[in-house]
Amino acid sequence: MNARKTMIGVMGAGERASSAECNDACLLGRLIAQQGWVLVTGGRNVGVMQAANRGAKEAGGLTVGILPSADFDGLSEYVDIPIVTGMGNARNNVNVLTSRVVIACGMGAGTASEVALALKNQTPVVLLHWSEAGCTFFQSLSGNRIQVANSPQQAIQLVLNQLEI
Amino acid sequence: MNARKTMIGVMGAGERASSAECNDACLLGRLIAQQGWVLVTGGRNVGVMQAANRGAKEAGGLTVGILPSADFDGLSEYVDIPIVTGMGNARNNVNVLTSRVVIACGMGAGTASEVALALKNQTPVVLLHWSEAGCTFFQSLSGNRIQVANSPQQAIQLVLNQLEI
Amino acid sequence: MNARKTMIGVMGAGERASSAECNDACLLGRLIAQQGWVLVTGGRNVGVMQAANRGAKEAGGLTVGILPSADFDGLSEYVDIPIVTGMGNARNNVNVLTSRVVIACGMGAGTASEVALALKNQTPVVLLHWSEAGCTFFQSLSGNRIQVANSPQQAIQLVLNQLEI
Amino acid sequence: MNARKTMIGVMGAGERASSAECNDACLLGRLIAQQGWVLVTGGRNVGVMQAANRGAKEAGGLTVGILPSADFDGLSEYVDIPIVTGMGNARNNVNVLTSRVVIACGMGAGTASEVALALKNQTPVVLLHWSEAGCTFFQSLSGNRIQVANSPQQAIQLVLNQLEI
Repeated sequence: MNARKTMIGVMGAGERASSAECNDACLLGRLIAQQGWVLVTGGRNVGVMQAANRGAKEAGGLTVGILPSADFDGLSEYVDIPIVTGMGNARNNVNVLTSRVVIACGMGAGTASEVALALKNQTPVVLLHWSEAGCTFFQSLSGNRIQVANSPQQAIQLVLNQLEI
Repeated sequence: MNARKTMIGVMGAGERASSAECNDACLLGRLIAQQGWVLVTGGRNVGVMQAANRGAKEAGGLTVGILPSADFDGLSEYVDIPIVTGMGNARNNVNVLTSRVVIACGMGAGTASEVALALKNQTPVVLLHWSEAGCTFFQSLSGNRIQVANSPQQAIQLVLNQLEI
Repeated sequence: MNARKTMIGVMGAGERASSAECNDACLLGRLIAQQGWVLVTGGRNVGVMQAANRGAKEAGGLTVGILPSADFDGLSEYVDIPIVTGMGNARNNVNVLTSRVVIACGMGAGTASEVALALKNQTPVVLLHWSEAGCTFFQSLSGNRIQVANSPQQAIQLVLNQLEI
Repeated sequence: MNARKTMIGVMGAGERASSAECNDACLLGRLIAQQGWVLVTGGRNVGVMQAANRGAKEAGGLTVGILPSADFDGLSEYVDIPIVTGMGNARNNVNVLTSRVVIACGMGAGTASEVALALKNQTPVVLLHWSEAGCTFFQSLSGNRIQVANSPQQAIQLVLNQLEI
């Protein structure tokens, strides 16, 4: 038996996420569920996290939320499996270790830390809604482990490519 | 919507677990799955963790394993959702924060740390296969939040009582 | 060169510490400083932590406080080196990994977790102000790595014995 | 009494650090010690960490090393106070929470995660030996909390400016 499921992370901003990022996060969640993958996010009920979880649940998927807090306050109602770490932003490292591939949807300090920690831990990363400076910088750190997508659909295709490696 | 599932922890030794502890852990996993709860363990493929996950999967349940390691080495093949923390024994705190109730199946230093952290975090605990000294000690710390079971069936009944509070 | 200092932990309750525990913690801090060791505590400005740090500073020692919080709120004014973990009670594992020997001054759920994690990590432990049930329980887990002291002076002697091993 | 010392972080690569980065890290360590500050690094005996600690100790300073490992293997012999976290790269968050200001000496995935986590946690950052893309990217995230230095001396001046705020 091998019960282990394929877990794909969608990381992005909370309160500061833009509408475009949230819309694409929702579609990413939906597409991840349709692939039969489990969605991994930071678990909070705002921004990219909330939107991705909503998309995944609306498509019948399974969702894991890795919370920074020591309790369930602020948990997205679309998370099936909340993991309560109580370790603040250090939980960003758990997010990327747990995800087979990380999709970073939008830039921000927290998300940038997840991209950097993913590269440090050899987890492949797909960037969506990133500036040219952001893409250039992270690709200069680790050329082939990081890829840039222009749409949620392309991001999912890049994840599929990674899973075949 | 409220997607959040009821997550029940079964904590216990790895390599040092006894046959009696493993047999009861397997039954605990089965009973937890039959209740429709999600099983939470330390995720490794030995001892109480392995047995509980096997029992839960054989009964069609869903299993979460919170690993101390930074990769998937040593993961139980009966774990659906591995959480890779990379934080060693500090992950014991994540185990007990994540579990609605913790069943400690057998004594040992790691399990004792989980019982103590659960009490510190106000998570209810059920003790199974504990010595009188162990029960006396932890009950002296927190009388009503910790209970002693004599069988897996009784442990599940005590969990049910806690969920009703 | 080997700059590394000998670091000795004093762990105990915060708000719930008794006067007797605080008095002995203060003396432990003083004696640790007089040995030329560095004091390690949980860093907060209450109970055993506060008293041990005060004792060490009054004797001219150096003090390290490993805080559970993500900022400096509640830091003891007697701590030279605050380590801000932001990881809540999971920082208890950092306390015991960092200490060459842990003196547990008084019982409580948090302190019990530190004793258990110390045993798990093979860090020697000295118990002071513990009940018979507590001593019996932890000695049953790891007979020779844990010792019981009746006074701060005896605790320091037991630490000295451990450092010679 | 307020025993708390001013703690300044120097973060950078281990095995992959360049000679120029190590030379400047050594000078940073020396200058930090001369200011009477405590040096905070990742504590390992390679690259920027080793060089900064050596510089600080040669100037009579006090050094804190926050290790990713669960033991003292690989500890720099120039570290006075090793903090053993056992939490891998998640300790990067402890590094930046503990430092009053972070000097990032050289780029790399681990260091980039520390810059991002520092910004997330509102810790000021000084960049030294960074590419234009790296500076542009992180300044776009948090314009005024991040500054670019061209030399160790200028980095120290920027730290001094921050401490006055």
